[in-house]
Amino acid sequence: MPDVGLIMGSQSDWPMMKQAAAILEKFQIDYEKKVISAHRMPQEMFAYAQAAEQRGLKVIIAGAGMAAHLPGMTAANTVIPVIGVPGQTKALGGMDSLLSIVQMPTGIPVATTAIGNAGAANAALLAVEILGISRPELRDALKNYRQEMHDQAAESSARLD
Amino acid sequence: MPDVGLIMGSQSDWPMMKQAAAILEKFQIDYEKKVISAHRMPQEMFAYAQAAEQRGLKVIIAGAGMAAHLPGMTAANTVIPVIGVPGQTKALGGMDSLLSIVQMPTGIPVATTAIGNAGAANAALLAVEILGISRPELRDALKNYRQEMHDQAAESSARLD
Amino acid sequence: MPDVGLIMGSQSDWPMMKQAAAILEKFQIDYEKKVISAHRMPQEMFAYAQAAEQRGLKVIIAGAGMAAHLPGMTAANTVIPVIGVPGQTKALGGMDSLLSIVQMPTGIPVATTAIGNAGAANAALLAVEILGISRPELRDALKNYRQEMHDQAAESSARLD
Amino acid sequence: MPDVGLIMGSQSDWPMMKQAAAILEKFQIDYEKKVISAHRMPQEMFAYAQAAEQRGLKVIIAGAGMAAHLPGMTAANTVIPVIGVPGQTKALGGMDSLLSIVQMPTGIPVATTAIGNAGAANAALLAVEILGISRPELRDALKNYRQEMHDQAAESSARLD
Amino acid sequence: MPDVGLIMGSQSDWPMMKQAAAILEKFQIDYEKKVISAHRMPQEMFAYAQAAEQRGLKVIIAGAGMAAHLPGMTAANTVIPVIGVPGQTKALGGMDSLLSIVQMPTGIPVATTAIGNAGAANAALLAVEILGISRPELRDALKNYRQEMHDQAAESSARLD
Amino acid sequence: MPDVGLIMGSQSDWPMMKQAAAILEKFQIDYEKKVISAHRMPQEMFAYAQAAEQRGLKVIIAGAGMAAHLPGMTAANTVIPVIGVPGQTKALGGMDSLLSIVQMPTGIPVATTAIGNAGAANAALLAVEILGISRPELRDALKNYRQEMHDQAAESSARLD
Amino acid sequence: MPDVGLIMGSQSDWPMMKQAAAILEKFQIDYEKKVISAHRMPQEMFAYAQAAEQRGLKVIIAGAGMAAHLPGMTAANTVIPVIGVPGQTKALGGMDSLLSIVQMPTGIPVATTAIGNAGAANAALLAVEILGISRPELRDALKNYRQEMHDQAAESSARLD
Amino acid sequence: MPDVGLIMGSQSDWPMMKQAAAILEKFQIDYEKKVISAHRMPQEMFAYAQAAEQRGLKVIIAGAGMAAHLPGMTAANTVIPVIGVPGQTKALGGMDSLLSIVQMPTGIPVATTAIGNAGAANAALLAVEILGISRPELRDALKNYRQEMHDQAAESSARLD
Repeated sequence: MPDVGLIMGSQSDWPMMKQAAAILEKFQIDYEKKVISAHRMPQEMFAYAQAAEQRGLKVIIAGAGMAAHLPGMTAANTVIPVIGVPGQTKALGGMDSLLSIVQMPTGIPVATTAIGNAGAANAALLAVEILGISRPELRDALKNYRQEMHDQAAESSARLD
Repeated sequence: MPDVGLIMGSQSDWPMMKQAAAILEKFQIDYEKKVISAHRMPQEMFAYAQAAEQRGLKVIIAGAGMAAHLPGMTAANTVIPVIGVPGQTKALGGMDSLLSIVQMPTGIPVATTAIGNAGAANAALLAVEILGISRPELRDALKNYRQEMHDQAAESSARLD
Repeated sequence: MPDVGLIMGSQSDWPMMKQAAAILEKFQIDYEKKVISAHRMPQEMFAYAQAAEQRGLKVIIAGAGMAAHLPGMTAANTVIPVIGVPGQTKALGGMDSLLSIVQMPTGIPVATTAIGNAGAANAALLAVEILGISRPELRDALKNYRQEMHDQAAESSARLD
Repeated sequence: MPDVGLIMGSQSDWPMMKQAAAILEKFQIDYEKKVISAHRMPQEMFAYAQAAEQRGLKVIIAGAGMAAHLPGMTAANTVIPVIGVPGQTKALGGMDSLLSIVQMPTGIPVATTAIGNAGAANAALLAVEILGISRPELRDALKNYRQEMHDQAAESSARLD
Repeated sequence: MPDVGLIMGSQSDWPMMKQAAAILEKFQIDYEKKVISAHRMPQEMFAYAQAAEQRGLKVIIAGAGMAAHLPGMTAANTVIPVIGVPGQTKALGGMDSLLSIVQMPTGIPVATTAIGNAGAANAALLAVEILGISRPELRDALKNYRQEMHDQAAESSARLD
Repeated sequence: MPDVGLIMGSQSDWPMMKQAAAILEKFQIDYEKKVISAHRMPQEMFAYAQAAEQRGLKVIIAGAGMAAHLPGMTAANTVIPVIGVPGQTKALGGMDSLLSIVQMPTGIPVATTAIGNAGAANAALLAVEILGISRPELRDALKNYRQEMHDQAAESSARLD
Repeated sequence: MPDVGLIMGSQSDWPMMKQAAAILEKFQIDYEKKVISAHRMPQEMFAYAQAAEQRGLKVIIAGAGMAAHLPGMTAANTVIPVIGVPGQTKALGGMDSLLSIVQMPTGIPVATTAIGNAGAANAALLAVEILGISRPELRDALKNYRQEMHDQAAESSARLD
Repeated sequence: MPDVGLIMGSQSDWPMMKQAAAILEKFQIDYEKKVISAHRMPQEMFAYAQAAEQRGLKVIIAGAGMAAHLPGMTAANTVIPVIGVPGQTKALGGMDSLLSIVQMPTGIPVATTAIGNAGAANAALLAVEILGISRPELRDALKNYRQEMHDQAAESSARLD
């Protein structure tokens, strides 16, 4: 069984959500990926969320744009942590997606990350951190990843000249 | 059976939503009112929306605040028209509620009205207009209501001095 | 006589509003389409709105951008439901159009949908839902349409791999 | 005949618009004041705007809040200059009123001032400047007014200690 | 002497401000055009504004972007009406320019129009309306212009099919 | 050792953050609470974050307002999950806090919740969900909590009449 | 001669600007304070800025609200550093002041701090930092001040229990 | 030793920050440039800031985008003045960067300039102004620079025709 469910409201979210997939693969996390539209597939959304715990999923990452209801409604139907990724949007840049995901009322949290690609990658890294609580090798891998990022940034400094 | 279902995400939305109730009563529209929280009562929300057509509801008015998912998720589960009322919020004034309701992606419309009390009253008036398509007496009542509003506004003009 | 009047503030709104036209055609709704500028054709706007009920129009869909007055002023001159579609704008993304349409004060509702193409398509779907109250075959067609959307979304899920 | 028409969308705009009235009185400008709601009194609005030139009005000041259509629709029905004052609003602070007034599309200008009381006072001062083009005594009065403002500001500087 | 001074904060505002120039030429208004940067040419800005009345200018149109101080500071130095045009900006779309121009505190009005090209054209039309108060032929020309706009909009309606 | 570290940028964040504390206590989660200002106590912030894993903390909840750097900088110094709570602010409602926390660039995630009290409570619930991955009794407790919320919402529905 | 000029657009800015005055006094910086309104006292503003260098001022702190032109126009008339403090505003919270001050075009910088009281205090601290470049005792005083802030924050942590 | 440290959160900020470098070179200011990522190189960031005074740096210019923590966290670790440049961002235009930098709470100031290239150039000019307090030749150079800008703007005015 996969540890992480990577779901998105539309196939058009894939270019964003594949940033998350790439991170999960880099950390060798088993995951599944699905289009589950909150508005066009509401039954599947509920079924997916309600079965998640039973199926052994440990974290769900949900990306969506505009009036993005997928993360919050998934979170309302499971007690496993749900991470929400706001899609960038043509009209409002993603402010609509962000507020629709992050401004959850008391009771049902969604762990929200940044708008767009950065947020998708970070959602996966957050999942790795969460899984890392009981898997020390993931923490080691995260430290390596951060060291890599550090080294690349440090090296880029030299290249400025 | 009521014609209009007046639902809201929390009891705290009632001071806003009673503006809608007052309009519906003025126009003698049968309605029911319920708290149905998208996030705390997701099953009931789906059940309510899915049964709405069968039960003979003709319009649903749904008010909610913050990451307001009630109007959109209700709309995703019925083909009767859903009117969404964005609640005013402490932090962002209601911009969060507004964008969470109005920015629905292609396929599932929510008829959105203004933030707060004005939006709640207008949601009910919109329901009356919709019902009025097949009930001429409601159109007459709407014309009377508008005449009243007109006369009050016109009279207030004289009172300026 | 057409059931739906599709009006827009400028010919430049047509690329957006034809999303609405396509939906109306798909559902075989009789409609008419016109450019009626609130600011350049105010008399026609009033005349159109005031004649709408008599002419047998059941719903008006009005799209406009910037300080978009067409939906609200049309609504002020008829008791048939008016759906407003905010146009995307170069400077502010459509936030100007959205607020100019949705923030109607108490008394005159405009059923507002999302900014841009999604909003135009949804405006037409909302019109179909409204007409569907008294035409069961439209509700069946809507259910079919949603099933199609559902199936396409579900199929796109498989294509992710 | 008055030179300036001071109109507002609702009696509730009077506390704001009386800032304009006070300025007009200070400069001894003949003016009339009226509640003319764009949405509840659309016929009167058009009639007022269309008759304005004939009646000898030289400038119209129009204040309104939320989806404020009064300034723009008045401007669309007359060739005399229309000054728009955006009302402060509870939910969005007046950003809705501001964008609904200032973002007029090409062809019909509205001379927009600041949100709320400052904007109302400035609308009247702008009217005085416009009338001052052909009435030198108003320019003198404006210079005196500015001198007064100047002196008060300068004196307030001493009071800081 | 020209009737209208068309000033802008930078040569890069010219593509916007030439919309104003085109309107002024269409209405055969004498105007002059200048780059006067509030921040790079502050002395000239003050001198220009202070001499405007003496030189016989009747209206100043000032366009600028970002923290746009040209319209407001010009207005502070003359009692002839100043119309402000907010430039569209890369980062914030022009919201910065708009608020820097329209939100003038009590005492010094700036007649603000829409962001960008539409606002520039409308600024010129507003100038024509202001000049038209004492020049009836300009009012006739404005009516013709509106009739043309009307006819073009009406004709575009037919072209939709 | 506590499982959760509850840190905040200032004592003035406590009224917000105690909503988180109350939830943690309700779920009998061991936690510690501290004021650790990113800007006034940067060394302690780094030390706290760097020691967190060693000390056995499993999740950090960090609340802060304005240019809120505490959550992101804590996250940059540990591989345990960091949840960020944006404080409501007087000037901008909390939009500043929200964007300073949620818009983290690729590499360092912060799990962001809503602005203010709701976000603080939800941050704690998210921590419980995360801890619940390996502690089934917490999942049961969460289900009970949700059932309570559900029942209260359902009961409030009856009280509407 | 004072080292710092503390100027503000209106006496009503004093409650904000006295936060700056308190810091300057704490650090025993000689300063002068004045109301100099950009719009009501433009000549004095220019004169003040142009004389600043000659008079030996080393830094100017300028606070203003709404379309705040004082900091930018002062900066345009002197080569000594100008720090701008955006005032909080009723309608838009201070977003108008902030953008009017910070979004200066290339050529004339304004060192902008936060909206309101925090920004005023920080403006003074920034002035101390600037003066500290050549006055080591000010750097020592700043380090003491930071230590105090640190200690107070650290102590407040204990008081949480 | 360089007088100015030019640091940025990522190599991708260089196209923006090189506007600052160009100005510093024009004024013959010794500077160093480095990529120091707040989130990927936190230790280096602290070390850099803490060593700055000792190393003889007089001003730090820090540019970053999104949840930009580099300027504020650098400022928290040194008493030399820190100038912050908000990067333009894809999703929100740079509003996220701006608020993350400018909205610093009381105690630690960041001298913030405009979003993007203009802000980067102005950050360098601000550094020159600050250094100019004790180096009269820099003030002369600034006056020359302003004269050049003035002359270019004035000349561009002639080119309008």
